[in-house]
Amino acid sequence: MGEELGEVEKEVLEAQAVADEQGNNVRALKAAVKKGEKTKEELNEAIALLKKLKLELDGKRKRFDELVGGGSASSVNKEAFRRAVGNALERRMFITQSFSIYGGTAGLFDYGPPGCAVKSNIQDFWKRHFILEENMLEIEGPAVTPAPVLKASGHVERFTDLMVKDAGNGECHRADHLLEDVLKKMLANPLDGGKRKEIENVLARLDELGAQELGAQLKKYEVKAPDTNNEISDPFPFNLMFATSIGPRGDVQGYLRPETAQGIFVNFPQLLYYNGNKLPFAAAQLGQSFRNEISPQQGILRVREFTQGEIEHFVDPEHKDHPKFSRVADLEMLVFSREKQVSDVKRPVTMKLGDAVKSGIMDNETIAYFIGRVYTFMVAIGINPERMRFRQHLEHEMAHYAEDCWDCEVESSYGWIECVGIADRSAYDLKQHAAATNKEMGAWITFDKPKFVEELVVEPISKVLGKAFRKDAKTVVSALKTMTEENALKMKAELEKSGEANLKAFCDGGDFVIKKDMVKIERETKKVSGKFITPGVIEPSFGIGRILYCMFEHTYYVRESAEGEKEDDKKVVFKFTPLVAPTKCTVFPLLQKEEFNVVCRDVCNSLVDSGLSTIIDVTGTSIGRRYARTDELGVPFAVTVDHDTLEDNTVTLRERDTCSQVRIPISDLCATLKNLSSMKTKWEEVQAQYPSQGGSASAAKEENRTEATYSLRCP
Amino acid sequence: MGEELGEVEKEVLEAQAVADEQGNNVRALKAAVKKGEKTKEELNEAIALLKKLKLELDGKRKRFDELVGGGSASSVNKEAFRRAVGNALERRMFITQSFSIYGGTAGLFDYGPPGCAVKSNIQDFWKRHFILEENMLEIEGPAVTPAPVLKASGHVERFTDLMVKDAGNGECHRADHLLEDVLKKMLANPLDGGKRKEIENVLARLDELGAQELGAQLKKYEVKAPDTNNEISDPFPFNLMFATSIGPRGDVQGYLRPETAQGIFVNFPQLLYYNGNKLPFAAAQLGQSFRNEISPQQGILRVREFTQGEIEHFVDPEHKDHPKFSRVADLEMLVFSREKQVSDVKRPVTMKLGDAVKSGIMDNETIAYFIGRVYTFMVAIGINPERMRFRQHLEHEMAHYAEDCWDCEVESSYGWIECVGIADRSAYDLKQHAAATNKEMGAWITFDKPKFVEELVVEPISKVLGKAFRKDAKTVVSALKTMTEENALKMKAELEKSGEANLKAFCDGGDFVIKKDMVKIERETKKVSGKFITPGVIEPSFGIGRILYCMFEHTYYVRESAEGEKEDDKKVVFKFTPLVAPTKCTVFPLLQKEEFNVVCRDVCNSLVDSGLSTIIDVTGTSIGRRYARTDELGVPFAVTVDHDTLEDNTVTLRERDTCSQVRIPISDLCATLKNLSSMKTKWEEVQAQYPSQGGSASAAKEENRTEATYSLRCP
Repeated sequence: MGEELGEVEKEVLEAQAVADEQGNNVRALKAAVKKGEKTKEELNEAIALLKKLKLELDGKRKRFDELVGGGSASSVNKEAFRRAVGNALERRMFITQSFSIYGGTAGLFDYGPPGCAVKSNIQDFWKRHFILEENMLEIEGPAVTPAPVLKASGHVERFTDLMVKDAGNGECHRADHLLEDVLKKMLANPLDGGKRKEIENVLARLDELGAQELGAQLKKYEVKAPDTNNEISDPFPFNLMFATSIGPRGDVQGYLRPETAQGIFVNFPQLLYYNGNKLPFAAAQLGQSFRNEISPQQGILRVREFTQGEIEHFVDPEHKDHPKFSRVADLEMLVFSREKQVSDVKRPVTMKLGDAVKSGIMDNETIAYFIGRVYTFMVAIGINPERMRFRQHLEHEMAHYAEDCWDCEVESSYGWIECVGIADRSAYDLKQHAAATNKEMGAWITFDKPKFVEELVVEPISKVLGKAFRKDAKTVVSALKTMTEENALKMKAELEKSGEANLKAFCDGGDFVIKKDMVKIERETKKVSGKFITPGVIEPSFGIGRILYCMFEHTYYVRESAEGEKEDDKKVVFKFTPLVAPTKCTVFPLLQKEEFNVVCRDVCNSLVDSGLSTIIDVTGTSIGRRYARTDELGVPFAVTVDHDTLEDNTVTLRERDTCSQVRIPISDLCATLKNLSSMKTKWEEVQAQYPSQGGSASAAKEENRTEATYSLRCP
Repeated sequence: MGEELGEVEKEVLEAQAVADEQGNNVRALKAAVKKGEKTKEELNEAIALLKKLKLELDGKRKRFDELVGGGSASSVNKEAFRRAVGNALERRMFITQSFSIYGGTAGLFDYGPPGCAVKSNIQDFWKRHFILEENMLEIEGPAVTPAPVLKASGHVERFTDLMVKDAGNGECHRADHLLEDVLKKMLANPLDGGKRKEIENVLARLDELGAQELGAQLKKYEVKAPDTNNEISDPFPFNLMFATSIGPRGDVQGYLRPETAQGIFVNFPQLLYYNGNKLPFAAAQLGQSFRNEISPQQGILRVREFTQGEIEHFVDPEHKDHPKFSRVADLEMLVFSREKQVSDVKRPVTMKLGDAVKSGIMDNETIAYFIGRVYTFMVAIGINPERMRFRQHLEHEMAHYAEDCWDCEVESSYGWIECVGIADRSAYDLKQHAAATNKEMGAWITFDKPKFVEELVVEPISKVLGKAFRKDAKTVVSALKTMTEENALKMKAELEKSGEANLKAFCDGGDFVIKKDMVKIERETKKVSGKFITPGVIEPSFGIGRILYCMFEHTYYVRESAEGEKEDDKKVVFKFTPLVAPTKCTVFPLLQKEEFNVVCRDVCNSLVDSGLSTIIDVTGTSIGRRYARTDELGVPFAVTVDHDTLEDNTVTLRERDTCSQVRIPISDLCATLKNLSSMKTKWEEVQAQYPSQGGSASAAKEENRTEATYSLRCP
């Protein structure tokens, strides 16, 4: 089905291009008719053709939609959808370009009030879900990092992307992105089968290409600089770390950390001590990381400064079972194993984690346990589980030290986006820092039961040797002690056979005749209670901004207008879970009357006092418009104060997605909203407890709700 | 009293120096006696003198302690206290030097698990206390900032400290710190009155000195480089911002933000729009700021990367009253006005905020309201209100644009530390960014009632003028329109008197005779509904690390040993408020038995599930030692599972500071601890509700608790 889908998508894009061109023709003709240069007949003919082309386009688009079902869509729809979400995010100041009054800086974004609140809620939940519930050790270190730390970790040498320069204006571009864009455009046009296969093959291997091979491909496909069409340089590596200088002398090189992980690794000895010198344990850090991207793009998905949450789980490499694995073993999710990716099907399968471990698809319980915890985290904050998959890295994608790696990928209008990486980094980082600092970066593992190990002990009898060899005794003792096990056994045999043996036959110790009473060579059984190891590390690493953006796309929908409303009065809604909603409740007066406003302020204050983020909207616009405004911010609940409130101290409580309402006493409001917001109580339970109230005329009805996955029906 | 205190402190320091020197003598004599170079009698004599000197020193120290009471102490005691607190913070990994396995980097620190949790709790409370409760607009922007933004704000030019270089090894030092150290050492020795006054005068003015004057003073007092005693360079300005380069071309200069405030200012137009174009409103940002300090010192008080919380309250400069001021008007605190600082008394006075505003000591309600909110914040997180004062900046301390500025200073072993600055920055920043970008950075203020303004209107009658002057009409119209009000009135009088007037008599319009019907000059009343202004800004700015450190000092104490314990078994306690405590509860089994452990794990899990940070300690050490361990982490409550628990499902609940215990059913534990932790319930209320339980033998008794403010009685 995948291949057919690709064909149809291509057809849609081609038909779109043809229709667009004809649209331009029609516009040009219209102008020409006005000037008298063309006849009306010519124009009408062109319009008729345009209509025909549009019909064809619609037919192809429909066929494409049928093929993809609800989960995907044409790139045309995707772009329109993405623009609509972006507009909503910018209009309500969820996210804005940083320093926009100065023209903005590529790859830097600000979170405005609602975006900041949503991000903060997700981070708080991350801390609760992982740090608190898994009893992790949280640390917070600086972003400014001295160079030796990042030399040891390999970042100074290898944290690079390949870059090309525009030979004309010096503009820089990512070499792989440039090649990718050109090849994808080629694929959109008719090509013979061999050529298409060839290009698809290059695209599939894009991540693997080194500077030389990438350079050769750029030449082969005659890639030029975008916009200018100038020649480009050969690809060369550009280090993505922001460099700076620490201290006033200017001689201490520093970088802004490209990941939060290293701040944990360098603290390993202290953290181990803090944990009572016991393995396994996990440490975590949530904070800013910095990557000086060559050409940032895709909104907040590839930025120069971002919030990262990283967990380093330190474990005895020989014991990667997990005591709490049974709690996640029955969780089912989309698993896209390495094997499936290289097979003909190329599709993930729904699988239980327990089965994934049993069948060996996932290497061990610990990595699978974290995959399970990531899954429950993502679902809790509003990611659609049907549009999330765990994809195993192919061999070439993994760092050379990594043992296994799974990405939690979420489908967005940009395609499948890596939001969380769960990697088995082995003991690489700790060993690197140990080598760079000469510090002990290991842990003592006590065996469950002591082990008994047989070993050969060579014990020179110093007293006898001293008498026999005087000043040479030291040399002899040292020679005996450093004999290989094999030679020691040979000497033992010789001594037992003939009573003496010449040292020079067994090692470079010189010409000394050793007697039987001069050395004891025996096999002994030793009790070993444990061993010293460098722990393995399993690292779940979260890009908070990416998760946030995908969540925005998954929670965005457009509510159709209710009867009697204007057609273009489409209403944008973010169906945030109460957990992440920036504001839990909006309080309105039904009409702009001071006696209503007084009650609204009291209600709002009591909700805020109990820790619930609440806003008040006393502007004079219609209640329907105010509901729409609060829906666009994703506020899950709204309270309306009306005439009845003044009589009986009850208010209307409305739920965002169903638009259903109940009548509830003010005295119950705080507790009810707290439970709804912490997701202890479901809306249905509240509905069962309190009398329902008819929605106001302008409020949309439940059946009008549209879950517009890439729907073009948006403003 | 202040002056006497200074004298006595000087005496203590002098006596200490003399005693130290005699101590050295005694050690030298001991060695000499061994070698037979001196007699035993000489040694005994020296020892007797040392004993006498030490007695004198103790007497002076005692007198000093009497004078200062509990609130302050000698610098000797301060240092020992600081070391003890520092040891405790490092021992339990609250705070550690960053990159310590690489030798550490000056001015960079890590927060370990308990430090991170305390910091996180303080930040959460900051968000709740300010952003949620004051309905502020929170934003989050990047640290990486393009140069033009910081040029406009003045940081590129003026964010500097004066630096000197060691002529020998190139080491850099802060010029003012060097002078200060030398002068303070001079003051510690006997000096004639004139000299002492002179030096005290220089110290008082240290902040005001420019490069030239500071250079002159360094020369005058013959200041050399510390450690090496080399010559030093003249002072020169060093910019404290970390510089970096944005993007791959290397031609976009950037800096790490030195404050979070500018990220708010550049978003002002969008934030104003978000707020419905209404003033006043406040925006806030909590995040990392970076300052490349010349010589970081004083632990985490002066660092190169730190968390800052900044609030910008935008307000009509003519209306700085605050609707919620009455809520803080009766709050009493130590207020150290500019006037008191320059008076003879030099002491803050306890004052109500209402009175401070009424008497004009504080400029307006808004700045006083924020001072009140800062006060309640600081007290809630554990700062001792008797060791906190609000000090007004002296004229020379303020930035040239600032209208008023108050520091919340907290007393620590380092002296009075600025933890929060509350500044009226006027419209400076917004005007700077407006000028740099040509963007509108103002707001429209609608008057409560429209104002009626009388103004003189000069209305040339174009038709008549056109006929009379033809091609010159334009010149005449323009001349009439730009007349001063005074001349227009004179012309009006002339026209009314003689029916005509020559233009040249009233302006540079040329020789034209104007008739009465050619121009209408009338006073008219106009209705004005509002005006366009650049808002003033009141900025409370918080250094989270400084607040944290002062809180550590204010909550540290040493519990004396109970009877039967070893003398040196002193126990360190941090009496964190439940709000900021890193862990709310520790769960212990009384003995290391599996049936106890099972219950402990269940209790711990249920507490964690309800969001309470809980740890479990099942190590085999004595219960007393385990209590001591949890006290040192500042855990306010501990649960012990014992034999009775298995019978009746009750446990012992212990409060940290009183060491008192109650017996409570496990089923009540969650709710009780939640209420205790959120400070809704007091421990006394829990004591009243449940039967008390005798403390274990090794638990210290309440009367043994020592609130050691700078006590030397610490490990």
